[in-house]
Amino acid sequence: MATLFKDVFILDGERERAQRGHILVSKGRVQTVMGVSEKHPAADKIVEGRGRMAVLPGFVNAHTHAAMVLLRGLGEETPLMEWLQKKIWPVEAKLTPEHIYWGTASAILEMLATGTTCFTDMYFEMDGVARAALEAGMRAALCRGIVSGPPVDGVSKIDVSIEDNLALFERWHGREGLITVQLGPHAPYTVPFEDMKKIVVIAKERGIGVHFHFLETEWELGYINDELKMTPEKYLADTGILEVPGTILAHGVWMTPAWADNLDMSNVTIAHCPCSNMKLGSGVLPLDTWLDKNVGLAIGTDGASSNNRLDMWGEMRSAALIHKGVTRSPTGTPAIDVLRMATFEGARAAGFANKGLIREGWAADLVLVDLDQPHYVGADEENLAGYVVYAGSSADVRGTMVNGKWLYKDGVYPTMDKEEILRKTREAREAILKNP
Amino acid sequence: MATLFKDVFILDGERERAQRGHILVSKGRVQTVMGVSEKHPAADKIVEGRGRMAVLPGFVNAHTHAAMVLLRGLGEETPLMEWLQKKIWPVEAKLTPEHIYWGTASAILEMLATGTTCFTDMYFEMDGVARAALEAGMRAALCRGIVSGPPVDGVSKIDVSIEDNLALFERWHGREGLITVQLGPHAPYTVPFEDMKKIVVIAKERGIGVHFHFLETEWELGYINDELKMTPEKYLADTGILEVPGTILAHGVWMTPAWADNLDMSNVTIAHCPCSNMKLGSGVLPLDTWLDKNVGLAIGTDGASSNNRLDMWGEMRSAALIHKGVTRSPTGTPAIDVLRMATFEGARAAGFANKGLIREGWAADLVLVDLDQPHYVGADEENLAGYVVYAGSSADVRGTMVNGKWLYKDGVYPTMDKEEILRKTREAREAILKNP
Repeated sequence: MATLFKDVFILDGERERAQRGHILVSKGRVQTVMGVSEKHPAADKIVEGRGRMAVLPGFVNAHTHAAMVLLRGLGEETPLMEWLQKKIWPVEAKLTPEHIYWGTASAILEMLATGTTCFTDMYFEMDGVARAALEAGMRAALCRGIVSGPPVDGVSKIDVSIEDNLALFERWHGREGLITVQLGPHAPYTVPFEDMKKIVVIAKERGIGVHFHFLETEWELGYINDELKMTPEKYLADTGILEVPGTILAHGVWMTPAWADNLDMSNVTIAHCPCSNMKLGSGVLPLDTWLDKNVGLAIGTDGASSNNRLDMWGEMRSAALIHKGVTRSPTGTPAIDVLRMATFEGARAAGFANKGLIREGWAADLVLVDLDQPHYVGADEENLAGYVVYAGSSADVRGTMVNGKWLYKDGVYPTMDKEEILRKTREAREAILKNP
Repeated sequence: MATLFKDVFILDGERERAQRGHILVSKGRVQTVMGVSEKHPAADKIVEGRGRMAVLPGFVNAHTHAAMVLLRGLGEETPLMEWLQKKIWPVEAKLTPEHIYWGTASAILEMLATGTTCFTDMYFEMDGVARAALEAGMRAALCRGIVSGPPVDGVSKIDVSIEDNLALFERWHGREGLITVQLGPHAPYTVPFEDMKKIVVIAKERGIGVHFHFLETEWELGYINDELKMTPEKYLADTGILEVPGTILAHGVWMTPAWADNLDMSNVTIAHCPCSNMKLGSGVLPLDTWLDKNVGLAIGTDGASSNNRLDMWGEMRSAALIHKGVTRSPTGTPAIDVLRMATFEGARAAGFANKGLIREGWAADLVLVDLDQPHYVGADEENLAGYVVYAGSSADVRGTMVNGKWLYKDGVYPTMDKEEILRKTREAREAILKNP
């Protein structure tokens, strides 16, 4: 079955300007991209753009904990450690595999309605996450959050965790072309240095990516300096993590762009989470300066409990605005760079080739955007990226497709039972909030 | 005709917690607010909330230039003065009264769809703005942007401008209870100090509010210090503007909260425009500190050319997030304060009494919000403000009413011809961008 997007604006993060034209999708891929004046081929299904629709690559949420939608709104406006210790962790401890499956499904509903086609997830009980993604038909990059520490009853916690993550890899990596699996050491302060080195060795030997929280907070910078007695550059170099292709460093707020002048960071993608970093008071990553370095830069929402959305439009807009405000430079962080971060760079970091741009032969992971609205008057080939990033929002999404298949179209989810998922998600929420 | 909102969550900016209940609206007002278990009265129209809808006060956009939607997207990512001088002003000079009427109508479409019921506007050819607002049935606070300077052909420019603004007041102030008019001196650098004093005297004599750009940029702070040879506190005190009830100071990025310890600023409302301030690189207002002072604080989008939206949800979320990030305090700028700023405080500043809260006898300026969505799972009486501000977006708006009348409902505008307005707005855009 073929779908033709007829007379639409075509934009992605590596185009100088949008193109008005047609896109033919079949067999899960973009087969043809042509100009609006060219004669388009026949297709079973035609999406009539009439020059009032745009097609973008689907967004890639480069760092999240999808099932944390179950913890959304808990302990708002609470200091970070109190929030974690009193609000989040006690409730998180009650999550069952069933809860995580339904919470992830609910997160997928939210992501699809807002144009996201792929998410990079670190959590636990990840089989449910994989199942929810595959059932929906969504792309996902998964890892088990590895937290180690001293052995329990003589059994090495880190070995158990790594085995668990590797089993996840064996079961799911590559499944239906939709899933990749990474190793997921949680953070420098939850995984001892020697354990971290062990994980990196396995990642390199097995050719598996690593997804790692790094320098989200200034406290963590102090921890590395004071407890581990090393600089963060030395930590990166000595763990060997920079040598792992497909390394995602989530947050990186307190990383210093000048490091990239001395260290080879070309394997690394920083998953910038602007809204979560603001909401938790973690600070503001110097994105402008990072944009000049040889490092990948993607965008993530983080979990919904610290965002509180899984909406990449809000994330793009924040990324494009906040750095201009903080550096007081209206010319910083151009819209087109933000769009590339939110699509292609996220897909590449998650280990997906040929995804995140609209190119012939690339996966048809696409978002259909309605331009026939007041806030798009004046949008044209030259300025569309600015309209999308600064004026657009998820309210403009009319459809989201993965591998050429609609997963969300005009409020309907062809592969998912929205009512059942919301009911089960509400039940899960009630169960975890109930006192023991 | 009466409308009953049955079994909805009722929230406004002065409630500790939301209430689940019913609202009866008739004769343009909220007549009754009652608990969900109380027996509700009969009504011609019933909005069935089923505990999955919320009703909020309509948003008040406390500072905008609505017709600048016609200039949206011009000169993105350009330094401020180059942007103004090369991109904005030459095009603005071509605007006709007709363009401003249609541009404002288009802006009203956008504002209504995103839940805004009132806007505070400074521009020129304001009769068209008043007409567009009244025809739509929307509330608006209007002023003519007064820019003075040396006399032209012996005629005092300031006297002409003031006369023009006063004529606007005579024609429109109080019309249908929907319009207020302020005096609109543009800024300290475009209105000479003596002219400013003259405007303030008239405002006080006539009991008219003043809407004024003040300290948007650091350059302007330097201008007052170096060119006017005074401190900004002295400027505020000596012009007498602090004595004018209903003074709106737009932006105020470079104002210092400590001033409020020495000056009586109780007549003043600062219209915080977080996104415009970020986008133009103007900086970040210290909102947290201002929240502790005796000064009004409202929220505006500024014109769409520097935002680029007229969407108060995005503005609320940015206001709630950015200050936490910049001050690195997750406990700063609570959601409920931001909601109050975006509703009640804006209405009060614009000279509208009994608007912006959901109270018996107050105007029925309301927004209907759909909570039956994944990102509202878990929302309840205690936490709804956080859900609305951090997780909500304009995609959740199902209806917007002013004075008890639907102006937007499920994509339809009962009082406006969307297609004609968009067509005329596109024509206006083409006309002003055409080379002479």
